[in-house]
Amino acid sequence: MDVPLILIIALVAGAISIVFAGYFAKLVLKEDPGNEKMVEVAGYIESGAKTFIKVQYKVLSIFVAGLAVALLFLINPGELSITHMIAYLIGAIGSMWAGYLGMIVGVKANTRAAQGCTISIKKGFDISFFGGAVMGLAVVGVALIGVSAVYWATSDPSVVLGFSFGASSVALFAKCGGGIYTKTADVGADLVGKAEYNLPEDDPRNPASIADNVGDIVGDIAGMGSDLFDSYVASVLAAMLLAAVLGIFADEASRGYFIILPILLCAFGLFASIIGIYIIKAMKSESPGKLLNIGTYLATGLFIGLAAICTLIVSLGLTNPADITLVWNLWICAAVGILSGVVIGWTSDYFTREDKTPTKNIAEAAQEGHAVVVLSGFSYGLLSVLPPAIGIIIAMAVAYSLAGVFGIAIAAVGMLAIVGTIVSNDAYGPICDNARGIAEQGDLGDDVIRIADRLDSAGNTAKAITKGFAIGAANLTVLALLFSFREEANLINPGAIDVIDLLSVNVLIGAFIGVVIPALFSALLVLAVQRNAGKMVNEIRRQFEENPKILTGEEAADFNKCIDIATKGSLRELIIPSVISITVPLLIGALFGVASLGAFLAGAILSGFVFAIFMSNAGGAWDNAKKFIEDGNLGGKGTETHKAAITGDTVGDPFKDTAGPSINTLLVVMSLTASIFIGFLMLPIFNLGLGLLLF
Amino acid sequence: MDVPLILIIALVAGAISIVFAGYFAKLVLKEDPGNEKMVEVAGYIESGAKTFIKVQYKVLSIFVAGLAVALLFLINPGELSITHMIAYLIGAIGSMWAGYLGMIVGVKANTRAAQGCTISIKKGFDISFFGGAVMGLAVVGVALIGVSAVYWATSDPSVVLGFSFGASSVALFAKCGGGIYTKTADVGADLVGKAEYNLPEDDPRNPASIADNVGDIVGDIAGMGSDLFDSYVASVLAAMLLAAVLGIFADEASRGYFIILPILLCAFGLFASIIGIYIIKAMKSESPGKLLNIGTYLATGLFIGLAAICTLIVSLGLTNPADITLVWNLWICAAVGILSGVVIGWTSDYFTREDKTPTKNIAEAAQEGHAVVVLSGFSYGLLSVLPPAIGIIIAMAVAYSLAGVFGIAIAAVGMLAIVGTIVSNDAYGPICDNARGIAEQGDLGDDVIRIADRLDSAGNTAKAITKGFAIGAANLTVLALLFSFREEANLINPGAIDVIDLLSVNVLIGAFIGVVIPALFSALLVLAVQRNAGKMVNEIRRQFEENPKILTGEEAADFNKCIDIATKGSLRELIIPSVISITVPLLIGALFGVASLGAFLAGAILSGFVFAIFMSNAGGAWDNAKKFIEDGNLGGKGTETHKAAITGDTVGDPFKDTAGPSINTLLVVMSLTASIFIGFLMLPIFNLGLGLLLF
Repeated sequence: MDVPLILIIALVAGAISIVFAGYFAKLVLKEDPGNEKMVEVAGYIESGAKTFIKVQYKVLSIFVAGLAVALLFLINPGELSITHMIAYLIGAIGSMWAGYLGMIVGVKANTRAAQGCTISIKKGFDISFFGGAVMGLAVVGVALIGVSAVYWATSDPSVVLGFSFGASSVALFAKCGGGIYTKTADVGADLVGKAEYNLPEDDPRNPASIADNVGDIVGDIAGMGSDLFDSYVASVLAAMLLAAVLGIFADEASRGYFIILPILLCAFGLFASIIGIYIIKAMKSESPGKLLNIGTYLATGLFIGLAAICTLIVSLGLTNPADITLVWNLWICAAVGILSGVVIGWTSDYFTREDKTPTKNIAEAAQEGHAVVVLSGFSYGLLSVLPPAIGIIIAMAVAYSLAGVFGIAIAAVGMLAIVGTIVSNDAYGPICDNARGIAEQGDLGDDVIRIADRLDSAGNTAKAITKGFAIGAANLTVLALLFSFREEANLINPGAIDVIDLLSVNVLIGAFIGVVIPALFSALLVLAVQRNAGKMVNEIRRQFEENPKILTGEEAADFNKCIDIATKGSLRELIIPSVISITVPLLIGALFGVASLGAFLAGAILSGFVFAIFMSNAGGAWDNAKKFIEDGNLGGKGTETHKAAITGDTVGDPFKDTAGPSINTLLVVMSLTASIFIGFLMLPIFNLGLGLLLF
Repeated sequence: MDVPLILIIALVAGAISIVFAGYFAKLVLKEDPGNEKMVEVAGYIESGAKTFIKVQYKVLSIFVAGLAVALLFLINPGELSITHMIAYLIGAIGSMWAGYLGMIVGVKANTRAAQGCTISIKKGFDISFFGGAVMGLAVVGVALIGVSAVYWATSDPSVVLGFSFGASSVALFAKCGGGIYTKTADVGADLVGKAEYNLPEDDPRNPASIADNVGDIVGDIAGMGSDLFDSYVASVLAAMLLAAVLGIFADEASRGYFIILPILLCAFGLFASIIGIYIIKAMKSESPGKLLNIGTYLATGLFIGLAAICTLIVSLGLTNPADITLVWNLWICAAVGILSGVVIGWTSDYFTREDKTPTKNIAEAAQEGHAVVVLSGFSYGLLSVLPPAIGIIIAMAVAYSLAGVFGIAIAAVGMLAIVGTIVSNDAYGPICDNARGIAEQGDLGDDVIRIADRLDSAGNTAKAITKGFAIGAANLTVLALLFSFREEANLINPGAIDVIDLLSVNVLIGAFIGVVIPALFSALLVLAVQRNAGKMVNEIRRQFEENPKILTGEEAADFNKCIDIATKGSLRELIIPSVISITVPLLIGALFGVASLGAFLAGAILSGFVFAIFMSNAGGAWDNAKKFIEDGNLGGKGTETHKAAITGDTVGDPFKDTAGPSINTLLVVMSLTASIFIGFLMLPIFNLGLGLLLF
């Protein structure tokens, strides 16, 4: 089979994926959206989410336009890079579209899922799950079509880099902005509603309740959609870039096949995801948590099998036995990648599950008060970094020993190949979360709320695994991008990055700043949430004080005011982190040289991994420790222990839903920035600066 | 002047320092120890501290003996390294002695300082300050004599490495063990005494009150003494090792002078410290905080001046003009080092001072509840990493551009040269803290307690600066050790570490694990405190419940039980972190090779810096935010805002007094372990392992 034919497979896979997404969307839409009150609430959520997306995309357009112009002039200084710029814009639009779709699906599915819960838990599950699948399959389909089409049209992986950078720059905005939004609303609503006025979760009297629901949509679904779109594309890109330049192929004619191998692996991963979703659809189990995880394992197993077929297809095009051996080694790399993803997911699961030691110990620590539960969660969060780090290291070592740095890139592709399943499972969570809110607000009764709660809690469990997966995959991806960064530099100026020597002071400085950046970035995001949540708190208090009828339920709260605070605040606060992620790599490269920039990336990747895992797992564990107590353990709800556990959960909120997951995007954006602007950074003018002083 | 003569200057400086320490000790001891009750309490504290030190030193002896045997056989595999082993034991004993002395001084000074507060604030200040000075001067004197004598006897910097390793391995135990002890007692006492029973700080009815005082002695004074003894020796050692091997001297005959330059700089730094202490003694100001800081600035200025004399002395022995230029460049490096120390201190001060924005914002965040104050302190702690990182980077860049890696080592020596002043100011704090406790327990009345409070609060301010100083200095020191590590490796096998290339997968794995280690280490220590404080809480509750007469003050609490919990717990909990710090570097070296070990160290140094600064500053800021509220702001004591601020403070306790400061020691121990066992790790057998697989 020749190369264009293989690309057709990928395009067809992408198209099939979108058809299935449309089919699942139809399944969801034909369901009953529930009573008038529910439709009204869903309407509020929809309009709030649309307002946010509209304002965000307006700001984003300026940012994207600015970067597009920068790319046009700076990718190849001295000439105009129109193709790259167009690819960049397509990537950005694709990512925006993924976010927008997530929003629409979320809004449509949540009220229907709530209504589904009145029929049976399986019905509620199906609607939420299909809603998630729409998102998962559509995102992956578009990404795959985009990458394949761009490569087919240009035969130049560096143009795919433009596409990937477009996806990333949007994802950064979407993830940070959505993350700040969702936690501004959530933390604000909890601090006043739950803690001061003893209102239950999602109580419609809480003026921030709609903003909280909107937050789930724009942060957890739309933001996450853009984020995984971004990682997915970047992992394929990194492997393509390496395949295009590495001298590891025995026969130069093989190169074309290896360049598109990552695309093909993704196509087969997509089939694995679709089959997995279908099997789950057919299964009769009433345990939603089990179903979601079975979906992940099924997709994993299926992918390893299908990847063998994919490998066989590619090997048919190869003539040199050494290259045929290599492609089979790469199959093992892909398998190792996805398996280590599962293992990393397990460790996240262990550190955040209600019935495991860490979370239990954190719940017990709540008995000693607010401070101790914080210390306990903090410590377990940090401890939880070690197992996935070992997982990544093993994956990296095995992949490297089989196929060099290209093996590492393929392991990352393998890990992300079933991203369709990952996104589906991830989007399921916020849909259920909102369904629960709508059930509460639509007066569907305690039984229905309990069912929605069970669905929601399964979402949390699934999320632990998918989050570990996502962080691990992003980590391997940026490592692969680091290796391709060297190759890019050497293409422009052979020997430009021979080594990245930590004992060279320039390089050490780059690594130092790199290690500091994720800490700084996390701090800015957490501070943003804290600051905005403070404003939200004041607004909620003001409403309750000025209009006592809100609390009695006689008059509706002013939801729009809260939505407005969350919208404006999150957009204002994401500017500094976004600017940092683009400008700091450029500054490092310009001041200290490209080797230092490589060390900067490496430092940021490693320290970013620590912060991402720590914050995600600590947040998850606090959340579940609180739930453990709410399930009636250690005295149950309303006790001092419970209050302390709520403190832990609130601390964890911006950790796990704002800062932690944004770090992935930060790393990808910084890595892509370095690669795409490398021609600019290697202009002779930058060799006259500090670099000269230090060498 | 020739080399032995210069060494005599250092020996004499060390001796003078000890004489002054003795003189200040006499000044302290001749003061009135106060009333019977105070002497009784001081007696309890003394016996508690001695018990801890005794048990700790017993465990430590086994550890030291084991390492001594390992060194004997493994430093130069195939032959016995008796000299190194003896130097190691001397270093260990020196460090143990520094800790023991700190304990004795603390115990003697605190009751006298409390009594001094009944006369005047200046009297109380003088006693605390002289108590601190005894510790500062004695520690530095012994370190200087030790290093000079070992080098004089052997003319071999690698034997000084043995001495330094001895100091470090003890410091690790002392710092971790003392740190866990002090916070077990402090957090435990606060959680039950303050929060549940509304007892004031240091109330004698609190069964953990004596353990809390003992903790200040064994953690803050003894631990800190060993810790700075360790950093100080290591900084001198790193410079000596580099001077012994680098090919940067125009005339080979100059080498001897450059090897002892760091020792001589320290001798002159000591003079600067002594003169500074004397000027403070003569000053009449009643603002203790101002006096302490003036002491630091004076010592800094004096050191820069005296270092010029020192440089002149060395330059007289040099004949080659290039070497004379070099020695003057090194003088600038030393000055840059100490100045950047001051700047780093300032930034710590800014981020933790009551009257600056970060701490005020944290205090205001307490109005929104427990979770928000935690989030706020967490974020500011992380933000506070950036300015000192830039400080270190600038110092490193300037020093490197002037004199290469040797310049970086001399910058570290410069930063630590006034360690006499730093230790004095640091030891002052816990002495005042205990004096306050004894004043409370000895019924000296509210006015005296208020005076003691003012002294204590000055100690906290001074501590912010000295802590920033200590972390910065340790960081530069371990960076210098990293460069000397390469030279050591290349001495054994030329070209063994040509570069430490981050793009080599072995090296990347080393860096990855290195970045994770400080997180893991912090988690273990915080968890240790949390676990032990939980036991302490149970014990205090048990005593109050079983014997209600304790609360009425009719019967004394069982202090020994609490002392016992803190003692046993801290010793049990420090074993894993200690073992990690020695074995992980050895494992990395053995599995992945010495270049990977170098990357491991670099990763640990950079991420360790982030965690050390973050934890110290977050802890300090929470502490002062609480004090800001207790001073009557935002509603003052007893409000919900105050309670939330106490949560922040309690979270910060193990951050700033256990984990944060232990990271310094961890980094030094790991760096020295790598250097001292390098001959062993380069045995051919280790090249057969994983390293082969990956290359």
